[in-house]
Amino acid sequence: MTTPLTYAEANFSRFVDELVDLIKIKSISSIAEHKGDVRKAAEWVLAHLQNLGVQRAQLFETDGHPIVYGEWLGAGDAPTVLVYGHYDVQPALKEDGWKTADPFVPETIDGNLIARGATDDKGQFFIHLKTFEAMMQATGGFPVNIKFLIEGEEEVSSTNLEKFIEGHKDLLKADVAIISDTSMFAPGVPAICYGLRGYTLLQVEVTGPKDDLHSGTYGGSVHNPIQALAELITTMHDTEGHVTLPGFYDDVRILSDNERAVLAEIPYTEDVWRGETGAPQPWGEPEFTIYERTSVRPTLELISIDGGEIKGIKNIVPKSARARISCRLVPYQKPEHVAEVVKRYVEAHIPPTVKIEVKALAAGSPAVLVNRDSEAMQVAIDAYEQVFGKKPLFILGGGSIPVVTDFQERLGLPTILMGFGLPDDNLHAPNEKMALEQIRLGIQTMVTFYSILPERLA
Amino acid sequence: MTTPLTYAEANFSRFVDELVDLIKIKSISSIAEHKGDVRKAAEWVLAHLQNLGVQRAQLFETDGHPIVYGEWLGAGDAPTVLVYGHYDVQPALKEDGWKTADPFVPETIDGNLIARGATDDKGQFFIHLKTFEAMMQATGGFPVNIKFLIEGEEEVSSTNLEKFIEGHKDLLKADVAIISDTSMFAPGVPAICYGLRGYTLLQVEVTGPKDDLHSGTYGGSVHNPIQALAELITTMHDTEGHVTLPGFYDDVRILSDNERAVLAEIPYTEDVWRGETGAPQPWGEPEFTIYERTSVRPTLELISIDGGEIKGIKNIVPKSARARISCRLVPYQKPEHVAEVVKRYVEAHIPPTVKIEVKALAAGSPAVLVNRDSEAMQVAIDAYEQVFGKKPLFILGGGSIPVVTDFQERLGLPTILMGFGLPDDNLHAPNEKMALEQIRLGIQTMVTFYSILPERLA
Repeated sequence: MTTPLTYAEANFSRFVDELVDLIKIKSISSIAEHKGDVRKAAEWVLAHLQNLGVQRAQLFETDGHPIVYGEWLGAGDAPTVLVYGHYDVQPALKEDGWKTADPFVPETIDGNLIARGATDDKGQFFIHLKTFEAMMQATGGFPVNIKFLIEGEEEVSSTNLEKFIEGHKDLLKADVAIISDTSMFAPGVPAICYGLRGYTLLQVEVTGPKDDLHSGTYGGSVHNPIQALAELITTMHDTEGHVTLPGFYDDVRILSDNERAVLAEIPYTEDVWRGETGAPQPWGEPEFTIYERTSVRPTLELISIDGGEIKGIKNIVPKSARARISCRLVPYQKPEHVAEVVKRYVEAHIPPTVKIEVKALAAGSPAVLVNRDSEAMQVAIDAYEQVFGKKPLFILGGGSIPVVTDFQERLGLPTILMGFGLPDDNLHAPNEKMALEQIRLGIQTMVTFYSILPERLA
Repeated sequence: MTTPLTYAEANFSRFVDELVDLIKIKSISSIAEHKGDVRKAAEWVLAHLQNLGVQRAQLFETDGHPIVYGEWLGAGDAPTVLVYGHYDVQPALKEDGWKTADPFVPETIDGNLIARGATDDKGQFFIHLKTFEAMMQATGGFPVNIKFLIEGEEEVSSTNLEKFIEGHKDLLKADVAIISDTSMFAPGVPAICYGLRGYTLLQVEVTGPKDDLHSGTYGGSVHNPIQALAELITTMHDTEGHVTLPGFYDDVRILSDNERAVLAEIPYTEDVWRGETGAPQPWGEPEFTIYERTSVRPTLELISIDGGEIKGIKNIVPKSARARISCRLVPYQKPEHVAEVVKRYVEAHIPPTVKIEVKALAAGSPAVLVNRDSEAMQVAIDAYEQVFGKKPLFILGGGSIPVVTDFQERLGLPTILMGFGLPDDNLHAPNEKMALEQIRLGIQTMVTFYSILPERLA
């Protein structure tokens, strides 16, 4: 007899081939010249949904990249699940340090599919498409009503999604939202992420002379913009790693001793951190654990810097230099407030020898905590336990998924972050990967989840 | 009757067309993919010399880019002049801020030829080719023996020239060397540069994690390499602009009060500086004038910095960040010593949270002072006076021309820096230019110089 799981196993290598096709589309949402590729990925997802037998599938245009929507509502009074994913990816170039020939041509090495987007998020939302296919093909129907919302701007702050959600509340009506865009704690150790940091993204640009200057002719008389930028950046942290900007920590929620004790039980040791990062030694606020620094504490990170000629050598005092700052936010910081704190600080520290401009690069999103007490959450816990033989850990994520706030606040949806990635998946980095075994386990867990959900939410 | 000057005037527009052809060749010596273009420029100069009627013209291969040599020795016992120039140029991209359509397609605007290499140094050594042509065509001969040495690695530290000179002392034997690779003081105000700063070029690279890290997942626990680099850079100057590196000023020659008084007479005001640089306010060692800061004082400049993703946005803690440092040197600093000072300083200031590596990017060159008392120098002064109606100013240049040291020390040649550029020629910067009038005046000055040189050096 064909069951969803035997069907999935029998068709698994075709599933992987399909995922490879999708990954090959360079849907980098932050680079304008890939706009056509981003659309191509949207159209691929749309066509795929149509082939799977959804009742309705549609591209929604936005001011940016399109949103893919699909629904199957054949389960009558059964609950409705809204599945979110994103088909856009981070930039990637071979020369960043990829061991494969091309970041957009996946290779399977030691059971891992290595490519940009493999885990973030093409490989993860693909689990839901294949769970749907397997159950439909094996049983002729699906136990719940299901809606797919797959967007193309997650890596650029989900700029147009909020407006879309606000304008399509009926379309998106559901009983629970599921997102697979986070990681398990370790192989064999499942985890549900119950909190995510928010973020805000800014650029600081220092301008000195009207043009690049010959460094011999003018060097020594001009405040070098790279140096002025370095001087400014340096003052943004004290020597212990605290952010110095007045007002930065204003709204940060203070954890109770009890909360900190619970966090301390998560087995994230310095050795684990060393293994994952490869950095020589931890850094940051000494009064907090490494786990706390990356989850319940806000940060101010330099995500890029540039000035002068990078490729060839130009012996100049460059006209300008830029740094991009990403602040990761925790409850109850507001992205607009933190952006304003950075802007105010920079403007109060412009030396008379240069000009400095700050601009926001993205609206950002606040941190989010999800309700751990919903019945749907209990179903997710049970599904993990059936598949992995152990309850999932509740963990906090340092990254941001802007839509979670919208789902909770605009749609009033309990939202469950069921991530199937692994901590060493290199998301945003070279050699991003997805273990094929995690796709299998993901399908297994979701088949279990959907099988028991109707009776529990009845 | 055709004189050299009437010939030059009658053929001037063809001269410009020829220069445009040469400029169009993208001979960027510091970018490997332009290696073929650099050779193309060498071959263009070689063919041009052959057409002008030199008796011998030859490409000399080096471990890098080729050296073009040509000679005409038909003046018997008359003195021999060695003319140096370089056909390689700095990098340039339209998006750096060029007002023309393409930095390598010269456009003439308001009498200025605008293109990369227009003044540095294609347009300037071209003056000597055309002076030779004009005198040969108008008079059937040249008043002195002349040797042309046009290299292709000036913008990358003249790496292979020293060895070539050492190995070809007989070939290069001469009575005086002339270099046109500097600027006049202002339009109508000629200048002879009698001192140049040297330089040394290094790269500092900070590495933290083994790969780029997701800034949400790890931010707050890792010493960000951009921040660590900024912190290091910041400590390299004190708040007044002095370099803090122990030993940096060790060998700097102390100027006498009398020397400083002479320098103070050069009319380089803060207003002139503002007009040239467009920077809001001067910066640097307060106990020295702007002119001194850019000529007799050494510097430590950041010529480039990079880390993270520049084009798209990657929300990461980057794996590494790099800064390139150019130190401009004065007598009697040694490039190797200053490079060692930088290396030692960095190595003594590596925090335990990152790794830092320093490497030399170029051998560099020491500062140089030329003898102002030679008879050939007096001839140059007289030639300027005849053409411009005033004696040239003796000025100091902040930039570096490595070959000057080799000419003086290896060949024992009095070397005269007869620059015909203007201070606002934007060398190394966008919208580099050469005023066509300066090419005319250059030819006039050199025709005069060559006409009176034989009797004076007899």
